Amino acid sequence: MALRARALYDFNSENPGEVSVRENEILTLYSEQDIDGWFEGANSKGERGLFPASYVEILRSDAASTFNNNSCGTSGDAFPDSRYANIPAGGFDASYTPQSKVENFSKPSPPVFNTFTAPTQQQHQHQQQHQQHQQHHTYQQPSQGSDDDWDDDWDDSSTVADEPGTVGGRYRDFEGNGPSTYRVSTVPRGNAQQAKSSATVSRNLNRFSTFVKSGGEAFVLGEASGFVKDGDKICVVMGKYGPEWQENPYPFSCTIDDPTKQTKFKGMKSYISYKLTPTHTQNQVNRRYKHFDWLYARLVEKFPVISVPHIPEKQATGRFEEDFISKRRKGLIWWMNHMTSHPVLARCDVFQHFLTCNSADEKAWKQGKRKAEKDEMVGANFFLTISTPAAPLDFQEVESKIDGFKAFTKRMDDSTLQLNATVNEFARKQITGFKKEYQKVGLSFKVLSQAFEMDQQAYSAGLNQAISFTAEAYEAIGEYFAEQPSKDLDPITDLLALYQGHLANYPDIIHVQKGALTKVKESQKHVEEGKMDGAQAEGINERCNIISCATLAEIQHFHQIRVRDFKAQMQHYLQQQIAFFQKITGKLEEALQKYDNA
Amino acid sequence: MALRARALYDFNSENPGEVSVRENEILTLYSEQDIDGWFEGANSKGERGLFPASYVEILRSDAASTFNNNSCGTSGDAFPDSRYANIPAGGFDASYTPQSKVENFSKPSPPVFNTFTAPTQQQHQHQQQHQQHQQHHTYQQPSQGSDDDWDDDWDDSSTVADEPGTVGGRYRDFEGNGPSTYRVSTVPRGNAQQAKSSATVSRNLNRFSTFVKSGGEAFVLGEASGFVKDGDKICVVMGKYGPEWQENPYPFSCTIDDPTKQTKFKGMKSYISYKLTPTHTQNQVNRRYKHFDWLYARLVEKFPVISVPHIPEKQATGRFEEDFISKRRKGLIWWMNHMTSHPVLARCDVFQHFLTCNSADEKAWKQGKRKAEKDEMVGANFFLTISTPAAPLDFQEVESKIDGFKAFTKRMDDSTLQLNATVNEFARKQITGFKKEYQKVGLSFKVLSQAFEMDQQAYSAGLNQAISFTAEAYEAIGEYFAEQPSKDLDPITDLLALYQGHLANYPDIIHVQKGALTKVKESQKHVEEGKMDGAQAEGINERCNIISCATLAEIQHFHQIRVRDFKAQMQHYLQQQIAFFQKITGKLEEALQKYDNA
Repeated sequence: MALRARALYDFNSENPGEVSVRENEILTLYSEQDIDGWFEGANSKGERGLFPASYVEILRSDAASTFNNNSCGTSGDAFPDSRYANIPAGGFDASYTPQSKVENFSKPSPPVFNTFTAPTQQQHQHQQQHQQHQQHHTYQQPSQGSDDDWDDDWDDSSTVADEPGTVGGRYRDFEGNGPSTYRVSTVPRGNAQQAKSSATVSRNLNRFSTFVKSGGEAFVLGEASGFVKDGDKICVVMGKYGPEWQENPYPFSCTIDDPTKQTKFKGMKSYISYKLTPTHTQNQVNRRYKHFDWLYARLVEKFPVISVPHIPEKQATGRFEEDFISKRRKGLIWWMNHMTSHPVLARCDVFQHFLTCNSADEKAWKQGKRKAEKDEMVGANFFLTISTPAAPLDFQEVESKIDGFKAFTKRMDDSTLQLNATVNEFARKQITGFKKEYQKVGLSFKVLSQAFEMDQQAYSAGLNQAISFTAEAYEAIGEYFAEQPSKDLDPITDLLALYQGHLANYPDIIHVQKGALTKVKESQKHVEEGKMDGAQAEGINERCNIISCATLAEIQHFHQIRVRDFKAQMQHYLQQQIAFFQKITGKLEEALQKYDNA
Repeated sequence: MALRARALYDFNSENPGEVSVRENEILTLYSEQDIDGWFEGANSKGERGLFPASYVEILRSDAASTFNNNSCGTSGDAFPDSRYANIPAGGFDASYTPQSKVENFSKPSPPVFNTFTAPTQQQHQHQQQHQQHQQHHTYQQPSQGSDDDWDDDWDDSSTVADEPGTVGGRYRDFEGNGPSTYRVSTVPRGNAQQAKSSATVSRNLNRFSTFVKSGGEAFVLGEASGFVKDGDKICVVMGKYGPEWQENPYPFSCTIDDPTKQTKFKGMKSYISYKLTPTHTQNQVNRRYKHFDWLYARLVEKFPVISVPHIPEKQATGRFEEDFISKRRKGLIWWMNHMTSHPVLARCDVFQHFLTCNSADEKAWKQGKRKAEKDEMVGANFFLTISTPAAPLDFQEVESKIDGFKAFTKRMDDSTLQLNATVNEFARKQITGFKKEYQKVGLSFKVLSQAFEMDQQAYSAGLNQAISFTAEAYEAIGEYFAEQPSKDLDPITDLLALYQGHLANYPDIIHVQKGALTKVKESQKHVEEGKMDGAQAEGINERCNIISCATLAEIQHFHQIRVRDFKAQMQHYLQQQIAFFQKITGKLEEALQKYDNA
């Protein structure tokens, strides 16, 4: 059955591949899974192309007739995707309705897939790195999965289409569409949280600022409310270096093994399944990439000032190729490592559900999934769950620390970009140039030994064999150089990718903290001007203290895992390099011995 | 006093820089030292330029008036340079006179000096190697020095001129003169030996064939005669692998050290002096490049079927630069090694004179020098000194061995050229690319450590220092790569240069032997046809056997030193490479340790 949608606003196509739609026009969708914020489909005139997912509402067969544009409240499967219709996921009163036209509603960038322009691995790395110079948000938008579209996930499933236009080829139309070869998407931090306009402290006019969207503003203004269960409590304690997350009393880790290809629907759909084994349960569960993707979306929504590690990028094609699977698994292992290392993330319900729910028990999985999607303790309410040290922080000191960290992240970002570029180039040189040079030396020795073999005298046979062996040694050393980057440089690249994700998170986190601090300053001014009573300002102060504690705890955690990770990675790199040069030395010593009896 | 010369033949200039001369025209020479067979001077019209040295005779003040063009006999200082006037150095009757115009008299290639086109070292190597593909004779013509011009040697002396036109700049006229940037000169093997035309076996019509010039033809035809002293006897013995030179019963070696700059004529002339210390005398003597050059000319003249190792190339400028001196010294050491290793060359009088004559005793030196230049046992007469095993060789077997060796030298020449090109390129890559890549990695680590230093927390200081140290380690490793080629690849290049010299000698040596064999075949035919008596043919057979024995002994010697040299050089190369990679490993291990307490 063709999927239909209604245009909420006019959209005029601006680029090849886009199609214009008029308000209230009924559209046909080829998939309800958007591609970086764009739907593909046809308008009522039958013109086919892309239009912004946020400009339309999906009309479901069971809901199309009863759909009420003014409805809000809890998000449900029968309702339009809340992300695009701007319906809050939580149970708040909404002060504006999704169908009211928003002038500054940002249009997503058109999706362009690197796999269709088929760059070589080297070009890919090079361009990717170039891209990162301009914009760091190379990880994809989190998707709000629903049970219904669970199996239609465009990533992680095979390219067998059940809609007009084959899935595998349908984005080819947009090949070469402008210079931006790689997807650049921003990571929204949770849904926009709307709140009552009762406070005297002014509201941020930009409804799309991170401070507002994260729930930071609503919380500071005292508009968040919810029942915090004991199990949800999150403690910030005063440590040696300032506020820090209370350690996880039951630390664990989790392995990710055996990525295997699975099929369902009689082979119509294929996907890769990973075996996850958490140390605290020792029970293996099977998870797909889309499960990670779903979990990631929940975490980003829930934790406004925690840097959720990015999951590896989505990929449209080549998902069953061994190299890609191996690379994705490594990315997931790094991700898992950062998840289990984080005192707050490691313990949160949705992650535990993900790690422990029996893969075979579909009902239990769906229950946990719905529960997580209905979690009220997200965004503004997350801050309610935080308990802080008794003594409030000195805001000036906090501001100075935050500013210092901001400068630090800028420098670290620059240096990791440079290191990443160098490492990629170094790997490329070893795989191509270095290998070639050593093998050319080997070949020249080989040719010399073959010339010498024309002299049939007995006393030269030993030398000829020794030179021939030396030739083979250099041939082998060439191979060693080509193989080495996957052992020592690639892990550095993986580490840097993860940290570039974190570094991309921090501007938003810092923005939330700074927004809270601004509210404190405003409230103090209001109190001085007699526009606000002291108790209300004190409340703002206390809540800002909570946000500051959480932010500093997160920064402290970042530094600790950074030192841990980079130390371990540098050691690993040097160990691999030492082993590499020892291997070369060994090969050369073997060759040298051949001359002893020559 | 201006030096004058008389043109023996017409010469029409064909290239820029050359000047035409007419027969009997009186010319002014700027130096009596020729440059690759060319004199520079002016003709009677005052036109200045180059003309072939072989087309003129020098008019000496004390000899010009009495000079007789028909004179022959012993060559002396008062006579024109016998090489160019084609007057035999030995005491033979000449059957043709030098002033009779010879149509196929080969004109030498114009001299072009690489130092004036100032290629970079890399371009130099590259072009040189390219050049070698076309022609191997990159070593210079041996010069027949005389006592008078001893101090005017253009090489090895300073560029202070005492003639119009400064010496330093006088070849600039020829800069960019056609594509042949590098000197290509052929090495004539001794003087043309003229003999009586009494034999019934036909003479080679080409008076300039190596077979003729070397004296091989004259010897085979029984025209060589001379008194062989016991001390001059050279024995070919039958060894395990065929004929071989009798070993030197008193083997020795000779070191070449302390190249030092010397001046004379109140600083007007500078040259480099080398300290030579032969092991059999332990007396140090001082020698200049021109002494080596003079000795080389004597050896080439004397030994028709011995591959005299080439001395390092002449160089017009930059002779006092440290790199050049070091490189020349290495070349001379290799040369000396091949000289002292050769059973015949090591023992010959002129070499012993060179090695042992007290540098301070100028009179003794000049006596030995004149004696060597008047040596009668050169060329054709050299073969008189050879005694062979009793049993004559089977000529068919000899022919097959010679053909096999010819094919061998071709293959070896090709493979050494390829190896040389590879080694040069590999050195260049290590000095530039490899160094750069490792240092870029170092720099990126340095930048990372500097970014990390912005985090002032105590627990990260150790890591920052360790990364900083790692950065320095990679900086150092880059330097190691750049320094390494001089330790392992350059010696290979030196070895290959020496062997390319030998390989360039062998076509002539083989030509002499083949010429002799042809005479045997001709004589057999003549005997069958009744044109020659059996005794005469038997004489030709016997003399051809002597040439064959000498040639095979020389080939045997070549294989033996080849195996010795290449074995030693490959071992040296591998040992250096092992030490290099161990040094890198050591540096990395040092860096790794810094993380232990980080």
